[in-house]
Amino acid sequence: MAQLISDRRDIDFVLHEQLGLVDHERFAEFNKKTVDLIVSEARNLAVKEILPTQKPGDEEGCTFDNGRVTVPPCFKRAWELYKEGEWLAMTDDPEVGGQGMPKLVGLAANEYLIGANPSFMLYSGMTHGAATLVEAFGTDEQKRLYMKKMFSGEWGGTMLLTEAEAGSDVGALSSVAKKNADGTYSITGTKIFISAGEHDLAKNIIHPVLARIEGAPEGTRGISLFLVPKYRVNDDGSLGEFNNVVCTGIEEKMGLHGNATCTLSLGEKGESIGTLLGAENKGMSAMFRMMNEARAFVGLQGFAVSTASYMYALDYARTRIQGKNILKARQPGVKSCPIIEHPDVRRQLLNMKALIEGMRSLIYFNGKCLDIAETSEDPEQKERYGDMVELLTPLVKGYVTDRSLEVCSHGVQVYGGYGYIKEFPVEQLMRDSRIYMIYEGTNGIQAMDLLGRKLAMKDGKLFRDFIDEIRQVVEAAKQVEGVKAIAARVEKAVDKLEQTAKVIGERSKSKDVMNAYSFAHPFLEVTGDVAMAWMLLWRAMVAAPKLVKKAGSLDPEVVAAKSATNKDAAYYAGQVMTAAFFINTLLPSALAKMDAIVEGDSSVETMPEAAFGSR
Amino acid sequence: MAQLISDRRDIDFVLHEQLGLVDHERFAEFNKKTVDLIVSEARNLAVKEILPTQKPGDEEGCTFDNGRVTVPPCFKRAWELYKEGEWLAMTDDPEVGGQGMPKLVGLAANEYLIGANPSFMLYSGMTHGAATLVEAFGTDEQKRLYMKKMFSGEWGGTMLLTEAEAGSDVGALSSVAKKNADGTYSITGTKIFISAGEHDLAKNIIHPVLARIEGAPEGTRGISLFLVPKYRVNDDGSLGEFNNVVCTGIEEKMGLHGNATCTLSLGEKGESIGTLLGAENKGMSAMFRMMNEARAFVGLQGFAVSTASYMYALDYARTRIQGKNILKARQPGVKSCPIIEHPDVRRQLLNMKALIEGMRSLIYFNGKCLDIAETSEDPEQKERYGDMVELLTPLVKGYVTDRSLEVCSHGVQVYGGYGYIKEFPVEQLMRDSRIYMIYEGTNGIQAMDLLGRKLAMKDGKLFRDFIDEIRQVVEAAKQVEGVKAIAARVEKAVDKLEQTAKVIGERSKSKDVMNAYSFAHPFLEVTGDVAMAWMLLWRAMVAAPKLVKKAGSLDPEVVAAKSATNKDAAYYAGQVMTAAFFINTLLPSALAKMDAIVEGDSSVETMPEAAFGSR
Repeated sequence: MAQLISDRRDIDFVLHEQLGLVDHERFAEFNKKTVDLIVSEARNLAVKEILPTQKPGDEEGCTFDNGRVTVPPCFKRAWELYKEGEWLAMTDDPEVGGQGMPKLVGLAANEYLIGANPSFMLYSGMTHGAATLVEAFGTDEQKRLYMKKMFSGEWGGTMLLTEAEAGSDVGALSSVAKKNADGTYSITGTKIFISAGEHDLAKNIIHPVLARIEGAPEGTRGISLFLVPKYRVNDDGSLGEFNNVVCTGIEEKMGLHGNATCTLSLGEKGESIGTLLGAENKGMSAMFRMMNEARAFVGLQGFAVSTASYMYALDYARTRIQGKNILKARQPGVKSCPIIEHPDVRRQLLNMKALIEGMRSLIYFNGKCLDIAETSEDPEQKERYGDMVELLTPLVKGYVTDRSLEVCSHGVQVYGGYGYIKEFPVEQLMRDSRIYMIYEGTNGIQAMDLLGRKLAMKDGKLFRDFIDEIRQVVEAAKQVEGVKAIAARVEKAVDKLEQTAKVIGERSKSKDVMNAYSFAHPFLEVTGDVAMAWMLLWRAMVAAPKLVKKAGSLDPEVVAAKSATNKDAAYYAGQVMTAAFFINTLLPSALAKMDAIVEGDSSVETMPEAAFGSR
Repeated sequence: MAQLISDRRDIDFVLHEQLGLVDHERFAEFNKKTVDLIVSEARNLAVKEILPTQKPGDEEGCTFDNGRVTVPPCFKRAWELYKEGEWLAMTDDPEVGGQGMPKLVGLAANEYLIGANPSFMLYSGMTHGAATLVEAFGTDEQKRLYMKKMFSGEWGGTMLLTEAEAGSDVGALSSVAKKNADGTYSITGTKIFISAGEHDLAKNIIHPVLARIEGAPEGTRGISLFLVPKYRVNDDGSLGEFNNVVCTGIEEKMGLHGNATCTLSLGEKGESIGTLLGAENKGMSAMFRMMNEARAFVGLQGFAVSTASYMYALDYARTRIQGKNILKARQPGVKSCPIIEHPDVRRQLLNMKALIEGMRSLIYFNGKCLDIAETSEDPEQKERYGDMVELLTPLVKGYVTDRSLEVCSHGVQVYGGYGYIKEFPVEQLMRDSRIYMIYEGTNGIQAMDLLGRKLAMKDGKLFRDFIDEIRQVVEAAKQVEGVKAIAARVEKAVDKLEQTAKVIGERSKSKDVMNAYSFAHPFLEVTGDVAMAWMLLWRAMVAAPKLVKKAGSLDPEVVAAKSATNKDAAYYAGQVMTAAFFINTLLPSALAKMDAIVEGDSSVETMPEAAFGSR
């Protein structure tokens, strides 16, 4: 049977052959054997219990009726099993009810779980994000009342930021918090686009809410964070009365139908009482501390969905018989072939594969950086890899989700007409995947974050360390037979990227700031493309010597013959060729784009508004 | 009020300032004034009557019940008005019931009509295609019985090619035609993915059907074309009994819900009787003769939908207030601005605009070539522009529909979270647009057509003429103040494209054919990119002198000041800047892609099948 959701061989390669697990006593019990078991468990749950809910979740969607939201009924059993398995807090501290796994391992498990049903897993993701806020900023009392119940999935969680007039510009929000005599706050306001904002999977839902305390300054400086439960919580942890967080409707969306996107009204039908989470007027900085996790999670969603699309497309291409092999088309009596033999289908599949494998490595590397930053006793390492996460976050969110849509669209195309109909899963995956470029900060915001914040932080140290990491791989790869030529190409690319960053970085601090930001997204694209080249080169560098060992040679004909019978040879050959494909055929366009960024055409900035088109 | 569906100013520019109408006595009555009236009429019908059916068409979709398909009810009135206006055959010969308009003008009208509701207009498009087949290949009797009723829209038409095992490989079809004693044929078989295959807009539906006469050769050489009506037609033109063309189901699709995609079974519940259309075993060549029209129509659909998306996104960007202008963000008390002031939004809009305007010019130019080919008395011109249509067809279908999806995705992104919900039209437009890359020959097929057929035809003359047309514009533009620099860049690009075509063309006829075809789609992309640059340069070359006249100078500040008060200045400034944007920032990547094509990395061809991923 075909691999579903993801390619286990490739996950194992990244975990154990490319990156390696973090060696630290805190992770002592997570040796290779245990990790493999965990990933297998996650895959089992994903394939057997969650995947069957993906299509019904799309078709049935969520139901709104008089303030109540019902999730697709089949989600209920999956949620119970998911809770039982304690997956929600798998990477969290055992003290808060977690399993203490390395983040790197959690990513592998989550890739399967999310790829099976991203709508379903968003209930979990939102809850985890909210629980982490309580863990980071909660008082002992708040932790006691809420935290473990959230990390266990008994209660849900959300994030109430967006308002109709405050989307990308959170600072414009108008929700108000009024302090009560007992130290609690009464919150009023209307929040929109709240994922998992109301549902029937959990008995209570805990809403972290951004609002302005009466009299606080305008803009982001006057925003505080509050914890507002759907049902008030008594001192013994039992549920009290309804807290008047009223769902007034859910959105009809392009995809992600299984997750309820809610409008929530607070303090309108009665008091919505909350407690301050963290310090007064420090709500934005609290949100920012959680933002890396939230954004990496969005990148993971996009990536997991596109991986699933690739697995389906690959299986379809191997089994769908249509047309004749171009090399044999004129031979009399030749039979039709699987479409994977057609060059344009192969090109699309290799394009998908290159992006997916580059993204998997990048996302997992980001997870490993988190693990190092958390556990390292060397302050320099701790800082370096903590900073690396800062730098990588806009790539992991922005670049990855742009490319995920592209991969999902290829998935549809490989299916041809069948890809456009709902009978086949690639159709839904493409619709689901379109949201990731938008939520948790549009990719335009990610591009501004990379250029305006991350590039400038610590006087450019973060970006220099990033470049240094790439160069380390390039230097090593230049010594490895079979990858020397592509290593030289990546070297040129990284040199040019460094130069480009210098130019656009300086420009962003000059009077030409508008010009700089008009190239922020192209700069995100080329940085991401170089990151892909880096990761694919790294993979190829690891794989090439193993391929020589398995196949005895790097000669394409020998490799092809061996690959037909030896799975490892085929896998390693795929690594070397995928890297060559990306670096030789796709990376050159990124270099040309860098030249264009440096040149800095002024049309975007100078275009008169009326010139965009008639009113 | 905002322009809906399309930008009339730009349509007029292409018709009257860039391309100009074809001067021929056949088109004598279609002078500028008449043409403008026609476009205005089409726009009125589109905006007032057809556009209101777009969203209901998506929400209600088509209904299938026991063999009968009901279109969204609101389509009925729109169809009556569309028929009354005689829009279906506007460009056809008055002798067959048409209005004899130039194709170029028909495109402008259709851009509005399709942009208003592509599902609705597909009923018309399918009918027109089928009617044209009858006109081209029908006997006098077939014409008498069917043709005028189809061109008037009283009866519908379709195209029955695809079967479950015969999609891109039409030659694999298994429908059978058995000759009857009276010269008619009894057809049996099951056809899938039939757009407008069954519906209640027309009293009868006439199906051109590809099938194999018993005993005919295998493959495409043994395929014949038949005319099979839904209801048999009596000699006096009245309807006879049901012809057993049974709709057994309709597809649930990502978009285009208002058009019924049908499975049709012939000859199963009773005889389905048809008549031969054209010669025995010449069905494929008949289809091929109609293919350019059909494919250009698909390109037009993709383009029209993406144009509508741009108009909505532009209007939204002008009216949505969010965030502060980056140049003023630190000024105290500064208010939030329309998002069109943000550089990343501007970049996206300009990207959309450049593609849309390039595509509009390319599509209209293709229409003008058809007009010239049809009317010219100079045999060389007739041949040159007839051939030009052959060459442009894979671009107009393949390149345009790839880019249309990209534009529609930008449309969603400009709306942010609002773009993902069904409340706003860009969501539907993106779903609708995804089919155009697939039907009427996937874009992979288009790429093969360009490389394998069009490039080689007449020993390369078609491609040489295409390059020559571009060079004519480049040479002229090199003399025009304000566009000299971009003209020089386009010159380099066209030189490199010519060289690239030579290399890949030769490779496609060598033992490296697999390598060549693995770059067929990238070659389509770069050819299309150069075509965009050509068209945008052409526009800028026309606009720049007019801008100088209106604004007095090409200095950006002068232009900006003048543009604020003078619509023409703004429009022409937009032409010059849009060309600069595309040629300076996007075209360079195409040149790098050409280098990669010439280099010809072998990964796609040599990748062992097992290396694509685990089974």
